[in-house]
Amino acid sequence: MSIAAQAFAMDEQQRRAASRPDLLCLAGGFPADELLPRGALGRAFTAAIARHHGGALQYGWPEGNARLRQLIAARLWARGAKVGADDIVVTAGAQQALAIATEMIVEPGDTVAIEARSYPGAIDLFRRAGAAMTSDPGARARVAYVMPGVSNPYGRGIRPEERAALLKSGARIIADEAYAELRFDGRIERPLLVDARDRTFHIGTFSKSLSPGLRVGYLVAPPLFVKRARALKQTVDLEAAALTQGVLAELLERDNFDARLARSRRIYQERATRMVRSLSRRFPSFRLHEPEGGFSVFVETGVERDEEALLDMAIEHGVSFDVGSRFAHELPPSPVTMRISFSNIGPLWIDEATSRLAKAFTAWSKAPKARPTSYIRELAPTRQSRAA
Amino acid sequence: MSIAAQAFAMDEQQRRAASRPDLLCLAGGFPADELLPRGALGRAFTAAIARHHGGALQYGWPEGNARLRQLIAARLWARGAKVGADDIVVTAGAQQALAIATEMIVEPGDTVAIEARSYPGAIDLFRRAGAAMTSDPGARARVAYVMPGVSNPYGRGIRPEERAALLKSGARIIADEAYAELRFDGRIERPLLVDARDRTFHIGTFSKSLSPGLRVGYLVAPPLFVKRARALKQTVDLEAAALTQGVLAELLERDNFDARLARSRRIYQERATRMVRSLSRRFPSFRLHEPEGGFSVFVETGVERDEEALLDMAIEHGVSFDVGSRFAHELPPSPVTMRISFSNIGPLWIDEATSRLAKAFTAWSKAPKARPTSYIRELAPTRQSRAA
Repeated sequence: MSIAAQAFAMDEQQRRAASRPDLLCLAGGFPADELLPRGALGRAFTAAIARHHGGALQYGWPEGNARLRQLIAARLWARGAKVGADDIVVTAGAQQALAIATEMIVEPGDTVAIEARSYPGAIDLFRRAGAAMTSDPGARARVAYVMPGVSNPYGRGIRPEERAALLKSGARIIADEAYAELRFDGRIERPLLVDARDRTFHIGTFSKSLSPGLRVGYLVAPPLFVKRARALKQTVDLEAAALTQGVLAELLERDNFDARLARSRRIYQERATRMVRSLSRRFPSFRLHEPEGGFSVFVETGVERDEEALLDMAIEHGVSFDVGSRFAHELPPSPVTMRISFSNIGPLWIDEATSRLAKAFTAWSKAPKARPTSYIRELAPTRQSRAA
Repeated sequence: MSIAAQAFAMDEQQRRAASRPDLLCLAGGFPADELLPRGALGRAFTAAIARHHGGALQYGWPEGNARLRQLIAARLWARGAKVGADDIVVTAGAQQALAIATEMIVEPGDTVAIEARSYPGAIDLFRRAGAAMTSDPGARARVAYVMPGVSNPYGRGIRPEERAALLKSGARIIADEAYAELRFDGRIERPLLVDARDRTFHIGTFSKSLSPGLRVGYLVAPPLFVKRARALKQTVDLEAAALTQGVLAELLERDNFDARLARSRRIYQERATRMVRSLSRRFPSFRLHEPEGGFSVFVETGVERDEEALLDMAIEHGVSFDVGSRFAHELPPSPVTMRISFSNIGPLWIDEATSRLAKAFTAWSKAPKARPTSYIRELAPTRQSRAA
């Protein structure tokens, strides 16, 4: 099977899961439905379309809505980053910011430093760009991809010694802050661009903190790259949607976004605690990566079998998750690992979900080894790549 | 100057124009502000965010909102194209559909057949893909880019003999219907994919007919390319904004879209007639391409001078337009040509705008030839590339 065909087969597996109304979904990087700001967005929408001369319904500029960029710059400024609105290009989510940064700085034959398990959307882009990837701290790499606030799928922040080594390496840095505002302790890392302005490509998004449906993220490129980033944005899709940008700018101006974040962190932390407790109880032999933030727990089973068959069995038992190999950039991704999301499941369903998972695991362990572990599935993203 | 620097300089020229509140803008492919469906979108938004389980505020699938794809498929079906919702990938406007099609079928060294003057966003993509472009009807080309309904900037529909020759050529066809629903006579060409399903990449958008702020377009790829188009969409930005897709689907279901289109055609035709009449009167020696639809008139001045200086002079006189070389894929784009948009200027201002243009033209003709005509500016798009 080709990589594309493999990805499609896997995609079909999650689609099948999604079509079952009774399924408890522990896959994907979905924010909690209850936290999506319906009311605030409604008010912001009304204000945004009322603006004279087309406003949010007309064309804008490739770099995006000026008010929105000012608001983003102000938030970064408050964290010590001396960036202005003109340093920012608004993108269609973090993924497009990542795609534009990759297009600008990753060349065929380059080596990209990346954690042993990382965001599949990034792995996919680096692979398509013809780059090799390494997780060896001693390897020389021209570019490093990091999620300094909360990494995906490990759910941990960058350590001071890692940060120091990264800055010392001289590599160009792609700093993906997709989950950075959702550390449970509320602490937020000083942006890497403060210490390496000329070589840090800073990426943020409102998909995890507000709503993925807005599809608004941003790229803060080093000064020498801003013009090119704008030109690339224009080439790939002209500009981000003026409507969702306008709505978001209105919301950020009217809403107490920080209070909203604090509430979200509290709710996700509660779910994380419940999930870790429930998994520990049902799977005492598994190694759990207890998350410091974000949406999921990474789990190492220590068992060597076909992970895809485990997911099949789980779906049969009414629960889904993300197979761990999707987050790996190199072989072998065995033994079986899983990323278990707690972000969009009601807390009272968490124990039921792990119970189903335990039953599926037992059935899978007893089933004959029907097919060999396939190591190719992680090579392209499926729906869950949005878990950044 | 590098191409990027040139594009940026030109961009700055239009930005300067845009910052003048008294300027009459005849540049860009902007729909009329008065036709932007504020009220209908407001109602659609309320309905879209009310949907249970996140709906338009949550993640979806790379191919886009299923209801929206069904509505798009139904409109194509009514025109004789037997396509289903699953053949469609929703994109961030026509530009992204074009970028994805280009990525799939244009390789370095390929020749792309394209009109002598065409959409800058397409020229930019083909150039970046390493393709050569030809407007010679006798040349062999692997790929042909056409705007069969209303071409940009000429404003004309494909002729039956051109259509026959195109289909006979065996080339892969990128059929960009950005303006197709805005032919003044209301006639809409049978989609090219009806006659060449396996090699036609059909592109549509709601940017011209409803609102560019939604940033919703679509690609109907040949059956063998649909999976790859989905995978590419996921790589570049995961998916189109669920919010604007959901709003659009609600609007299309509730609204009489065809009645809206008919009204828009009437209004644009009236402006076109006024603009052509006014230009003919003030510039009797110019050749005007009288448009059959769309947003603009292409004008050949027959004068050999620096077009950029003409635009500068025009801005000084309170009017702007698009220099014709931006639509050219090969040298030389001389004598000076202009694309004059009538779509977003009040009809009572049209004669004032051409009066300012005439004064600027006179001043420019008398000015010393300060610098040589620069032929490089058309190589990359600026804000006006959205004029597709």
